[in-house]
Amino acid sequence: MRARRVSIHQMPVNSTLSPNPIRVRMLDCGMPLLVEEMAGVRTAAVSWLLPAGNATDPEGEAGDGWSSLLAELSQRGAGSRDSRAFSDELDRAGVQRAVTPAAVHIVVSGTTIGSRVDQALSLFADLVVRPHLPAESLDAVRSLALQSLESLQDDPQHRVSLRLRERHLPPPFNRSGYGNKIAFERAEISALRKDWMERARPVGSILSIAGAVDADDLARTLDRLLKDWHGTALDVRATGAMIGGVFHEEDASNQTHIALGLDAPSEQQPESLLCRLATNILGGETSSRLFTEVREKRGLCYAVNAGYSGGRDRGMVSLYAGSTPERAQETLDTMLAELVRFEQGIDEGELRRAVVGMKSRLIMQGESTAARAAALGSDWYRLGRCRSLGELAQEVDSVTLGGLNAWIAQSMGSAWRKGMTMCSVGKTEPRTT
Amino acid sequence: MRARRVSIHQMPVNSTLSPNPIRVRMLDCGMPLLVEEMAGVRTAAVSWLLPAGNATDPEGEAGDGWSSLLAELSQRGAGSRDSRAFSDELDRAGVQRAVTPAAVHIVVSGTTIGSRVDQALSLFADLVVRPHLPAESLDAVRSLALQSLESLQDDPQHRVSLRLRERHLPPPFNRSGYGNKIAFERAEISALRKDWMERARPVGSILSIAGAVDADDLARTLDRLLKDWHGTALDVRATGAMIGGVFHEEDASNQTHIALGLDAPSEQQPESLLCRLATNILGGETSSRLFTEVREKRGLCYAVNAGYSGGRDRGMVSLYAGSTPERAQETLDTMLAELVRFEQGIDEGELRRAVVGMKSRLIMQGESTAARAAALGSDWYRLGRCRSLGELAQEVDSVTLGGLNAWIAQSMGSAWRKGMTMCSVGKTEPRTT
Repeated sequence: MRARRVSIHQMPVNSTLSPNPIRVRMLDCGMPLLVEEMAGVRTAAVSWLLPAGNATDPEGEAGDGWSSLLAELSQRGAGSRDSRAFSDELDRAGVQRAVTPAAVHIVVSGTTIGSRVDQALSLFADLVVRPHLPAESLDAVRSLALQSLESLQDDPQHRVSLRLRERHLPPPFNRSGYGNKIAFERAEISALRKDWMERARPVGSILSIAGAVDADDLARTLDRLLKDWHGTALDVRATGAMIGGVFHEEDASNQTHIALGLDAPSEQQPESLLCRLATNILGGETSSRLFTEVREKRGLCYAVNAGYSGGRDRGMVSLYAGSTPERAQETLDTMLAELVRFEQGIDEGELRRAVVGMKSRLIMQGESTAARAAALGSDWYRLGRCRSLGELAQEVDSVTLGGLNAWIAQSMGSAWRKGMTMCSVGKTEPRTT
Repeated sequence: MRARRVSIHQMPVNSTLSPNPIRVRMLDCGMPLLVEEMAGVRTAAVSWLLPAGNATDPEGEAGDGWSSLLAELSQRGAGSRDSRAFSDELDRAGVQRAVTPAAVHIVVSGTTIGSRVDQALSLFADLVVRPHLPAESLDAVRSLALQSLESLQDDPQHRVSLRLRERHLPPPFNRSGYGNKIAFERAEISALRKDWMERARPVGSILSIAGAVDADDLARTLDRLLKDWHGTALDVRATGAMIGGVFHEEDASNQTHIALGLDAPSEQQPESLLCRLATNILGGETSSRLFTEVREKRGLCYAVNAGYSGGRDRGMVSLYAGSTPERAQETLDTMLAELVRFEQGIDEGELRRAVVGMKSRLIMQGESTAARAAALGSDWYRLGRCRSLGELAQEVDSVTLGGLNAWIAQSMGSAWRKGMTMCSVGKTEPRTT
């Protein structure tokens, strides 16, 4: 190979990456406020994690999916404003926003210019602490939720990833987020309001803000806005074991979708970074092994990848490919062969490229207020503290080829593969043996 | 409404927005180089428009979709590097990249840190000027293209937008980008190579770069890298009239997808901004009329929106909604009623919110090197010059309620609606009367 060899240490990242201070303030209400004051930007991004996600919903017909109803309803008027006035006022403050029901949290997020962040926070505080959750909106919101659940039937690619989650994660973290039909039909506004008050509480919530802001100013503003907010939300833990195994769902789709799930370290474990690097080399980049073998050499399918997600209590490596029914078996065989081969470890060039890629992405993250706000909140939830970009870059630099290969040999071998969960959706079922 | 009234002029945008210089250099090869030197960032983004998009493909079975084959093949080795080495070297330079076949151009784009942009450009120059387009990759690439075409059958939502494009734009701009099955099957490597050489030429291409870079350094580097590159690509113009009318496609989908297309100014016309603001108010924002009436009040569907796209030679306003078969007719009726009502104009509050939203988005764009690089190239193609963010913000500020309403009354009335194209995909066909 004639390519010029470039040392990863030529990239002068660590010393200058993120000189921005990260400030942590415990607000009077008991919620942590995490602030990264970023130089050279004019925007500010807010990420507010409320412990009211799908995993904290009542179970099954009793309320699975209420988090979706609540996320919608919370935007339909709050404080002194009705639905229309509330939405108009956010627009007037130039806030690009979303209220997203996720697995563990409902995420209230928004970006605007720094000089308007107080205005945005005042509206978000109303949404969280003083939402109307109006009875007259329930039918429309219910209808949207039912329609969304129904439309999953049209999306086999998305469905295979939900099936994998359902079988490879323990309850209640294995829920789809799309909810239960009967729970939607039976939902009453009084129960939903009570539920919001019990879950959207300060202790258990996390508010992070990054951009052209001042932490002390924000803390003062928020203590005022949240002075009537009290209480502690229940933490959510696994209530049982994962299902695992092999699962196929018949579908008339023109594609066969394959998803594989494997155990991985939680974000708290020191091996988390090793697993992230290894998974990138396996299937995260354009020059990854899966991409090269499945897509580039054999042309078996457009979409093939592997990703690592590190949660607070557990992690997961997942692989995905969508192929034609005729090529699904060869696609799966190739993926499994690459998994087996991976146990033998990676080479110096692969590590170097993965490290450069990860450090490039850190620098890109450092230029996005929204990405930094989200990262601060996610760090706090999973680790109980925030990592600076400089710290992350240093950690990446400390990985050695020997260390990574030793971990791969120990952790990504046949015992690991035996714990694999496999799901497929399509006309034909590809087989592992 | 108790909302505090906020003047749009409280947002001190124009004076400070984008003090970054935009520099234009005509390279020796005849391609313009557009550079925005951005303060306070460490990354650099590249957007290279090659006049080799789907509209410039040979017609139908003769070559519709070759641009997809070429975009794939161009990444499989170039200059002194084979496919593997080429991809590895881009990874080593930390370049997040894509080669995307679009309607008019093939877009080669990438982001890395500023100190590595020379390395990225050297590789991109090989890709454009010295690609291998290797014969041994053709079967795999062909197979991917056929599979992608096939998988469209599984995506009725995407298909309805392609059908609208097909009927509301004149040929060859109405092509789907997914190509022709027979053209893929018959494609030979010698013809593809010849085709690349004829289309990927400097005069007709546009290279834009934004971020931590110096325009003069870049121009010197590029003149060296591109010294053997010559020639002029054919410009593409409409070859016939649009089809228009009403079109329904039967599909077993659980959703009925509706897309409406209406004529609009090109980006070159001064009315372009008025149309963009008007369309945002109609269906671009969370508090837009379509969102409020279709989604929020009636709960008819999750996804409903309107968007304006301004091209070089023409523009288009498109509306989309995806509903259940049972609610599709009411959804369409509501959309059409809002279109009729819109002719009567908008109010002060709607304009104010649309203006603040647009200016917020300009500030956000100013913090993204990738967004700025893309905007420079797109401006040059459509207008023959680049607009700074400050210029755009000033233009937005100059819009008055009277001026906008006069334009709406004149341009979005019954004659405009008569020229509407309507497409639907689903079990049932919603009717316009």
